[in-house]
Amino acid sequence: MARILCITLNPALDVTVRMPHLVPGEVNRCQPLITHAAGKGVNVAQVLADLGHTVTVSGFLGEQNPHAFEALFARRGFADAFIRVPGETRSNIKLAEDDGRVTDLNGPGPQVSELAQQALLDKLDQIASAHDAVVVAGSLPCGVSAQWLRALLLRLKAMGLKVVLDSSGEALKEGLSAGPWLVKPNTEELGGALACAVDSLAAQVGAATQLLAQGIEHVVISDGAQGVNWFSRHVALQAVPPKVRVASTVGAGDSLLAGMLHGLISGHSPEQTLRTATAIAAMAVTQIGFGISDAVQLALLESRVNVRHLTKE
Amino acid sequence: MARILCITLNPALDVTVRMPHLVPGEVNRCQPLITHAAGKGVNVAQVLADLGHTVTVSGFLGEQNPHAFEALFARRGFADAFIRVPGETRSNIKLAEDDGRVTDLNGPGPQVSELAQQALLDKLDQIASAHDAVVVAGSLPCGVSAQWLRALLLRLKAMGLKVVLDSSGEALKEGLSAGPWLVKPNTEELGGALACAVDSLAAQVGAATQLLAQGIEHVVISDGAQGVNWFSRHVALQAVPPKVRVASTVGAGDSLLAGMLHGLISGHSPEQTLRTATAIAAMAVTQIGFGISDAVQLALLESRVNVRHLTKE
Repeated sequence: MARILCITLNPALDVTVRMPHLVPGEVNRCQPLITHAAGKGVNVAQVLADLGHTVTVSGFLGEQNPHAFEALFARRGFADAFIRVPGETRSNIKLAEDDGRVTDLNGPGPQVSELAQQALLDKLDQIASAHDAVVVAGSLPCGVSAQWLRALLLRLKAMGLKVVLDSSGEALKEGLSAGPWLVKPNTEELGGALACAVDSLAAQVGAATQLLAQGIEHVVISDGAQGVNWFSRHVALQAVPPKVRVASTVGAGDSLLAGMLHGLISGHSPEQTLRTATAIAAMAVTQIGFGISDAVQLALLESRVNVRHLTKE
Repeated sequence: MARILCITLNPALDVTVRMPHLVPGEVNRCQPLITHAAGKGVNVAQVLADLGHTVTVSGFLGEQNPHAFEALFARRGFADAFIRVPGETRSNIKLAEDDGRVTDLNGPGPQVSELAQQALLDKLDQIASAHDAVVVAGSLPCGVSAQWLRALLLRLKAMGLKVVLDSSGEALKEGLSAGPWLVKPNTEELGGALACAVDSLAAQVGAATQLLAQGIEHVVISDGAQGVNWFSRHVALQAVPPKVRVASTVGAGDSLLAGMLHGLISGHSPEQTLRTATAIAAMAVTQIGFGISDAVQLALLESRVNVRHLTKE
């Protein structure tokens, strides 16, 4: 099994509050809060751990509320290489009512100083090279520029690491220019970064060809229930997941990413890699959370994933 | 200075989320969460510490989210004698909008087993007698009966401790029958426990006479901005606080209680005791939080408290 470093620059505490019906301005009785340490890189780390890999987690964590994260890291046996910064890690509160209505209350994260950014680079200089791959996932916190992210990716790449990027907007755009080993945007994210629609297969083939030419080895484009297209020098595959009852799409993209990295780093065949990754993502959709809780269910989902070769134009 | 034990059987995490305007069903951007370890006994403990006393805190704390409490206890130098119980301490979330509208989301606390209740009694048997007074404040958690509270108060009283009670409903009613040393209900709480209105001074004198006859030494009845009436064998005093700009009434009653206990245990005159206690409560009202942040402001408020002797009928 591999040693994988998962970097989350802007983690979040996900807090879910369930109640029968939200009445603004009144006292509402609700169920116990459910708090999860989250953020794309933290989610990817958990799925990789489920798949048997040894994980180090890093990024920036507010020093005032690290407890849920520290408890998760201890429970999952993650090496904790997060830099603590003044303030609180942002909280995303979901008010979930019985009729299915959800109200999101999204707080800001801490300001990350140049000093903290340098501290993270110093830490990564010490620890990153002991890993087989590094995942950089999620948005950027206040104070961190897309250019800094690009420099970070180049620095990790220069260490000889397989660099996986999952972000959006300006961060994805700048990150792509660093030529990571694998990127996993969804169609909306990729369209935003390239400033063109990539809804059609032809447009995706065009975008992937451009990215492969820039030195990116694997371009994995997800489109929810429509499936996943994977392009590399030798691969052009499409996977369509089975229809499942959607409980929550939280962590589905992170599950796909973890599954792809797992298959590639374990030397599985391309077909098997994409099939398993797509099944792990489908399984995430059937859960309120995500992760590989049931090997039998995963095998069943795998058998129902439809993988086919795409004909390159 | 005295050693005081503050027992909070049902503490709460107070979480305030500020936002411009709450739109249900949408993504709302909000300010950073402000989280406070709270509960009446925990609040009283903080004001007593501000007044220079040595404080031990106890009660039941959910083992899944004790961090904000533990950080507060460490910061304030409180001895931590809380019994940890499975589950989460309840959270009370306040959604505060710019127009002043507040939406409360109040969660349930953990279930407190008979085993945990016995563990608290055992702990108190070990530590309580080293204190000069004990405050039992706030509501009862799931699983704890008003009869158990009564037995707790009798047990503490049998150790020779000055027992202070601040509760409401059935807990106050049963607690009064244990004959604590001091009680501090507001008019609504006292009316509820005695099943009669105590809005008029005559009704309060009647209620206090009944309670003093039951062996309660100090009956302190608060009525918000109307002031405080204090009855004991030798005292019948009324204090009216100065008019202040109300920022938040959170912790005002707890501040009054702490001030009363402080004056009595320090041997201050009755007039001075009530004057200072009323001023501390008024100062709490001028703050979003509470506590004695400014000695000059406190002295100013004290000078503006109107204390007069009540003529007993």
